[in-house]
Amino acid sequence: MTERILATYIIETAHPLEKAAAAMAGEQSSGTFVPVPGETDELRARYGAQIVRITQLDATETPSLPGSKAPKKGETPPTYRRAEVVLSFPYENVGPSLPALMSTVAGNLFELGQFSGLRLVDIDLPQPFADAYPGPQFGVEGTRRLAGVYDRPLIGTIIKPSVGLSIEETADLVKTLIEAGLDFIKDDELIANPPYSPVAKRAEVIMRVINDHAERTGKKVMYAFNISGEIDEMRHSHDAVLAAGGTCIMVSLLAVGLSGVSALRRHSGLPIHGHRNGWGALTRHPLLGFDYRGFQKFWRLAGADHLHVNGIRNKFCESDESVIASARECLTPMLGGYTVMPVFSSGQSAEQAPDTFKALGSVDLMYLAGGGIIAHPGGPAAGVASLIQSWEAAVGGIPLAEYAKSHSALRQALEKYRNE
Amino acid sequence: MTERILATYIIETAHPLEKAAAAMAGEQSSGTFVPVPGETDELRARYGAQIVRITQLDATETPSLPGSKAPKKGETPPTYRRAEVVLSFPYENVGPSLPALMSTVAGNLFELGQFSGLRLVDIDLPQPFADAYPGPQFGVEGTRRLAGVYDRPLIGTIIKPSVGLSIEETADLVKTLIEAGLDFIKDDELIANPPYSPVAKRAEVIMRVINDHAERTGKKVMYAFNISGEIDEMRHSHDAVLAAGGTCIMVSLLAVGLSGVSALRRHSGLPIHGHRNGWGALTRHPLLGFDYRGFQKFWRLAGADHLHVNGIRNKFCESDESVIASARECLTPMLGGYTVMPVFSSGQSAEQAPDTFKALGSVDLMYLAGGGIIAHPGGPAAGVASLIQSWEAAVGGIPLAEYAKSHSALRQALEKYRNE
Repeated sequence: MTERILATYIIETAHPLEKAAAAMAGEQSSGTFVPVPGETDELRARYGAQIVRITQLDATETPSLPGSKAPKKGETPPTYRRAEVVLSFPYENVGPSLPALMSTVAGNLFELGQFSGLRLVDIDLPQPFADAYPGPQFGVEGTRRLAGVYDRPLIGTIIKPSVGLSIEETADLVKTLIEAGLDFIKDDELIANPPYSPVAKRAEVIMRVINDHAERTGKKVMYAFNISGEIDEMRHSHDAVLAAGGTCIMVSLLAVGLSGVSALRRHSGLPIHGHRNGWGALTRHPLLGFDYRGFQKFWRLAGADHLHVNGIRNKFCESDESVIASARECLTPMLGGYTVMPVFSSGQSAEQAPDTFKALGSVDLMYLAGGGIIAHPGGPAAGVASLIQSWEAAVGGIPLAEYAKSHSALRQALEKYRNE
Repeated sequence: MTERILATYIIETAHPLEKAAAAMAGEQSSGTFVPVPGETDELRARYGAQIVRITQLDATETPSLPGSKAPKKGETPPTYRRAEVVLSFPYENVGPSLPALMSTVAGNLFELGQFSGLRLVDIDLPQPFADAYPGPQFGVEGTRRLAGVYDRPLIGTIIKPSVGLSIEETADLVKTLIEAGLDFIKDDELIANPPYSPVAKRAEVIMRVINDHAERTGKKVMYAFNISGEIDEMRHSHDAVLAAGGTCIMVSLLAVGLSGVSALRRHSGLPIHGHRNGWGALTRHPLLGFDYRGFQKFWRLAGADHLHVNGIRNKFCESDESVIASARECLTPMLGGYTVMPVFSSGQSAEQAPDTFKALGSVDLMYLAGGGIIAHPGGPAAGVASLIQSWEAAVGGIPLAEYAKSHSALRQALEKYRNE
C-alpha cells in the first residue's frame, strides 16, 4: 500500500455528506463524476483520494457563505449540514513538494459549488516530506543557544514606530532596549528593505551596537532583521546580517510565499523568524480557509524556526483558546522533529504570564511586549524585569500578587496594566 | 510630495468610520493611538498613511465576521456600518517590493478588533514599481505569436484525468487533442512534478509529439507544463521545457508565492500561465480577503502572462458579473503596460461564447473547455470546431442558432450542451 497524505476539513453543505465529500475527493484527484476517457478503475484505485471518515456536526438553515448551489431535487428550503471530513490522498500524486501539496489539499476546493463552508483543519504527512525538507534549522534549542537564554521564555520587543525611524535613530533605540535587559528585538513587519533604511545597512549599524554590548557584558541580544523581499534580495540581505554578526532573520511568510521561504531556509545560516501577517484573511471566517493547526505545518517544513501565534487577551479578534491551541501545535513534534518556537505578542504584559504558562505547560516560547515594557512606570529595564518576574512566579506556581510583594518591578506592572 | 500607494477597502465596523479608518492607517504605518517615544510629528507627517476618502455604504445589526470588539461606550446593540475606504501610503515606507507591499496593504489588518469585515478591493501603484518589476514578458501579443493564433480566442483544454496518467498515456492523449485542432493544452494544477511523471521527462515526451505535428502542419500547439515547485526545481524544470521546444510554463501562484513567481519570471524565457487555485479561500466571503481587481495586480507585476478568471455559468460559486469584472481587469493596462491574458475555464462550451464576448468586447483571451470538447457528439475535432464557430458567430453578431444552421459542429454542440 502506497503512503498517504491525510487532510481534515470542516465542511458545510446542502448536499448529502457522502456525496459532498466524494466531490471533494474527486475534484482534487482522479475520480470526477463526469466519465473521462482514460480514467480506468485501476487508475482511480491507485491515484484517487479516499474518504477516511465523515463525522456529522450541527446544521443550519442559513448558508455560512454565499454562492453555493443546492441539489437540484432536494429539500426546500435546504438544510446546510456541517461535518468533519478526513480525506486521504496518495503521496504518489504529489511527490515531496510543499507547493504541490498546497494545490492538492487547499487548491480549487474552497469555491466548489456544493459547499457553503469549507476549511482545512489539519494535515498529516508521510515520511518522504521529512526526507525532502530539512525543516527548522535552529528551532527551540538552537534559538536558546544563540540567545543564551534557558529555562524561561525569551523576552522581546518590536521596534516602534513601525516605520520611519532612520537607521541611526533605530540604533539608538536598540541601545536603550538592550540596556533594559531584553533577550530579543525584532523589526516591525512594515519595515523590510526600504530606500530610507536598507536592511543590509541597518544590520551593520545595529549589530555594531549589539556586538559592543555583547563584548562588554557577554550577553548577545538576538535581533530579527526583516529581510522579506525577492529571492536574490533576501539571500543578499541574509548574507549581510550574517556578516555583521547577526543571529536572526525575519520573513513575512505569506507575502514571500512557500517556495521563497523554503529557498531561504536552504541558503540560511540563521534562525528564521516567521511572521504571519495577512493570516487573518485566511482564517477569520470559521467556515473558510485554514485552522492554524494545519497551516503552520507548511511553514515548519519550509523552515521557519519561530512562528507567531498572537497572545492571550490580544488586541485582535482571536480567542484565547485559539491562541493557545496554535502555540500547542507549534510545540508538538511533527514527523519526529521540526520543533518550532511559538511567538506570543499583541497587548502582552506581566499580567498574562500565569495564564499562558498554565495553558501551555512550557516556557519554550518568545514573549514579546511593546507597551508592557516601554510604558512601565519604572522605565524599560523595570518593564523587562517585570516580565521575567511574572514568568518566575508562573513557573513557581506563586500567585502574581504574592510574588509582587517582594518584586517591585512586577508590583508596578500589575498596578499599571491591571487597570487598562 | 512623495509618491504614494493607494489602497481601497470595504470595511464593516461598529466604531465611528473616521476612527476605524484611522486605526487601519495607523496600524499599517506610523501613527498609532498609543504614543510611542520617537514618533514625532515630522515622522508621522512623512511616513504616516492617510485617509483619502470614506464613502459610507449600508449597515447591518449582525456582524459579518465573529470576534470584533464594539466600542466601550457606544450604541446598544451596536450598528455595523459598511464603507469604502481609500488609504494612501507613502511609497517611501515600502520601496519597490511586492512582498513588502503585500505586508503593508494586506498584512495585520484583517483581524483588527475594530472590524467585523475588511476586504482589499484595489491597489494603485506609483511608477517605481514599474521600474523595479519587468512584469509579463509575453502577455497577449507574445502568446499569440508563439501560438500562431490571431483575431480569436485561443481554444484550449486541460489534460484529464487530473492525475495518474503515465507520461506515455499523456502523450497519446496530447496527440488526439492536437489532431482535434486545439491551440492550447495545459496540465491540471494537481500534477506538477511527481515521481510517476517528472515534468522534465513529461515535457520531453510531449514536446516530441507537438514538435512532430508542428513540422508536418506548421501549427505548434502551446502546452503549459505545470512546473510549480521549489525555486531551483522550477528553474530546472523551466530549462527542460525550453530545451524540449516548449512554449509555456504554468505555476500555481498561491502555492508558489510572490517571491517565487517573481524569481521565475526573471529566469524565464517562456510565458507564465498563472493558475489561481486556492483563491477561493481569499475571496469567497464578501467582507474578507481580496477582490480580484486588486489581487491580480500583484501577479501581473510579478510576471504572470496568463491569469485564470473562471468562466461564466461555471461550476463554482462565482457569479458571472464577478468573472467578467476579473477578465476586464486583466485587459486593463496597468502602469502603462503589463498586459495579461485572461483564461476562461470551468464548464465552458460553445454556449457561453456570445455572452462572454458581449460582456468583454474582446477576443484577447483563452477559452478552455473539457467536456465542451471531449464530450462533443462529433468527437474532439468537432468540439474544437464548435468553439471556434461559436466565437465567429459572437464576434460577427450572429445569433448562435442562426450560425448553427450552416455550421454542423456548432449545431451539435448547441443540441448537447443547451440541455445540460
